[in-house]
Amino acid sequence: MIRPAELIQRKRDGAELPDDELTELVLGYARGEVPDYQMAAFCMAVFFRGLSERETFVLTNAMIASGVTIDLGGALGRKVVDKHSTGGVGDKTSLAVGPIVAACGVPFGKMSGRGLGHTGGTLDKLESIPGFRTELSLEEFVVQVRDVGLAIIGQTADLVPADKLLYGLRDVTATVDQVSLISASIMSKKIAGGAQAIVLDVKVGDGAFMKTLDDARTLAATMLAIGRNAGREVTCLLTDMDQPLGAAVGNALEVREALEIVRGRGPADITELVLTACAKLLAYSDLGIGEAEGRRRAEAAVADGTAETTWRRWIEAQGGDAADGALPTAPVVRPLLAPASGFVSSLSAVGVGNAAAHLGAGRRAKDDEIDHAVGVVVHAKRGDRVEEGQPLADVHARTEDEAERASGEVLAAYTFGDQPPAMRSVLLEVVD
Amino acid sequence: MIRPAELIQRKRDGAELPDDELTELVLGYARGEVPDYQMAAFCMAVFFRGLSERETFVLTNAMIASGVTIDLGGALGRKVVDKHSTGGVGDKTSLAVGPIVAACGVPFGKMSGRGLGHTGGTLDKLESIPGFRTELSLEEFVVQVRDVGLAIIGQTADLVPADKLLYGLRDVTATVDQVSLISASIMSKKIAGGAQAIVLDVKVGDGAFMKTLDDARTLAATMLAIGRNAGREVTCLLTDMDQPLGAAVGNALEVREALEIVRGRGPADITELVLTACAKLLAYSDLGIGEAEGRRRAEAAVADGTAETTWRRWIEAQGGDAADGALPTAPVVRPLLAPASGFVSSLSAVGVGNAAAHLGAGRRAKDDEIDHAVGVVVHAKRGDRVEEGQPLADVHARTEDEAERASGEVLAAYTFGDQPPAMRSVLLEVVD
Repeated sequence: MIRPAELIQRKRDGAELPDDELTELVLGYARGEVPDYQMAAFCMAVFFRGLSERETFVLTNAMIASGVTIDLGGALGRKVVDKHSTGGVGDKTSLAVGPIVAACGVPFGKMSGRGLGHTGGTLDKLESIPGFRTELSLEEFVVQVRDVGLAIIGQTADLVPADKLLYGLRDVTATVDQVSLISASIMSKKIAGGAQAIVLDVKVGDGAFMKTLDDARTLAATMLAIGRNAGREVTCLLTDMDQPLGAAVGNALEVREALEIVRGRGPADITELVLTACAKLLAYSDLGIGEAEGRRRAEAAVADGTAETTWRRWIEAQGGDAADGALPTAPVVRPLLAPASGFVSSLSAVGVGNAAAHLGAGRRAKDDEIDHAVGVVVHAKRGDRVEEGQPLADVHARTEDEAERASGEVLAAYTFGDQPPAMRSVLLEVVD
Repeated sequence: MIRPAELIQRKRDGAELPDDELTELVLGYARGEVPDYQMAAFCMAVFFRGLSERETFVLTNAMIASGVTIDLGGALGRKVVDKHSTGGVGDKTSLAVGPIVAACGVPFGKMSGRGLGHTGGTLDKLESIPGFRTELSLEEFVVQVRDVGLAIIGQTADLVPADKLLYGLRDVTATVDQVSLISASIMSKKIAGGAQAIVLDVKVGDGAFMKTLDDARTLAATMLAIGRNAGREVTCLLTDMDQPLGAAVGNALEVREALEIVRGRGPADITELVLTACAKLLAYSDLGIGEAEGRRRAEAAVADGTAETTWRRWIEAQGGDAADGALPTAPVVRPLLAPASGFVSSLSAVGVGNAAAHLGAGRRAKDDEIDHAVGVVVHAKRGDRVEEGQPLADVHARTEDEAERASGEVLAAYTFGDQPPAMRSVLLEVVD
């Protein structure tokens, strides 16, 4: 039997822990035998001392072993691909990637989180569609991926229960932002969920968890190493989150934009990112094609309407109303006009995110209610030339007062200049 | 209302916390509103980041404010002095200091701990005296200090409850050895207990918590600063714990040795330390004398038997049997003989302490039972010349087997040489 206090002390003093003892610590915690206070002290020691690559693998595997694992590929007789984003302001990538990949004949079954943030997680966005069910049983999930080619559901409680416990604990003990703990949390769920190939999207910038490219590279390298250690194929995209991704920030607004992307009418930046992710996923699939051909097929599925058809079949399969106009709308829509002419030098992602959160689009605490209809749609982004009085953004609010306040916050997120700023592409780097 | 997770994060990132927020964290924890897991993460962050002097003062004051405080001086109409040792192998100093100081007419009322260690704490040692009661009410305590001049009791639950909680938590989360946390723990109890002047004894060496003189100096300076910030007079003795203090290690054996010191027949090293502490305490008292005169009076109380008389009155006042022969004895007493002739180069305090602990004299876990009778009495110490076959020590055990094992352990604690080693005095430094 391990002595948790001794393990904490050894980690505190910089030692590498033996595989079996670290495993037992995690499993003991998941079984409720190691108390929260010892795990909290352990996580803080890890915050300062880090985990070795080997310890990170062991942690990930122990977390996976704490619950059931799913062999989605085996159930379908297909190779299963998945994508994961570390999340940012306006990130509705998965909602568009799913239907496009599925339309190309590659099954896409994804478990998503809810999470805290400026807007809701993928599940909250989907729940803005009237009737949409995110809580399918594992059987329903497998059947839908087989029959429709696509399902996105909430993570079931029996998958990686150690992560659920550990994340909840880290959230209230200031031990969230540690690269090994983040990586193990993300990768344990992807691996337990049965994906054989994974495209990761690590956001970098003021609206993301990783503020610098260096930090993002470290996180990417750690997740890649974990994936490969588990025999998975993994690619990681490092993408810009200094300004919101696409135009819409807010749950129903983002679902609407995702459908526009699927129809080929979405904003350029996020469309590019979606197609890049699709190309990589298709190249990883059992179609036996390369990335260029994957890109071509993804574009074709958008152009010929099969992606949109898949979208509708998917939404309806999960009980949602796929009709245009089914999504909730906010009572007040107020344009924000440019106070002067010039170029947009920057548009703070976190600034727009906070405005959306204050409107009610996000959650500050676990039990906060989300208003699916509210949010912000930005029309002018970095590098755009605007003329005085031209709309910069639309604020979707519950009341005129809230719209007024949010308009001020969105305006404050903009900086302007006389000259066009240096441009930065959405896709910053590919790590693989 | 404070947000504990935010305070943890700020400490984690190296910030100094505002007085009111740190106070509220400690008081909230004592009230059960801040959970153990957040306090554990906080303590680990403090382990890595430390506390500023100001934060250490605030922590100490908040711990004091978590419970009742005692004005023993006010109740007696006298200035009250106290002593505290950080503890080591064979440390029975307080048991001898109390009767000598009281015999000199200075009231000595002390609250002691039980604690984990190689042997029991002061309370465990006293409880080896048949009938001795360590749990007096506060009223009984005050009456006894007034009438007998001396009482040593267990810490009452309503004095510094935050420390009791915090120490229990630190013990199982590898956050014990942090200088600010140790200092606040010790000093909060001394200050809340009402002492106006305090003599601290910080042990240094392999059998002590502080392994190096530098660490001991830091601890001493921190405790002095806390005491002075609270308006107390404080002196700190740094004393040697590379070898056991005195000869006896084990609860009843140490009580017997303490009485020998009080009678003027104790080992030289601990007698010197006891008289030094007494001199300082008497100089701090309301007798209006200096340290030299204090030393003279302490020696006189030992020489003329008033110290021994006070010992007997004290033991009996707390219900104990003060008769010679009342203390329990071990069934097996086995001499350990010198395997060769030479000088004792060193005698590891921790080695002897572990031997005593394995015999049953100490506690490894909170609920372990202590055997009061067992232990080790060393006859040869550093610098002593021994001849082959001469007794080095006596092992007091429950069985021959245990005596055999302990003899091996004690022998292993000795190193010998052809030349006398460099000597080190018991009193290493005085910090004031």
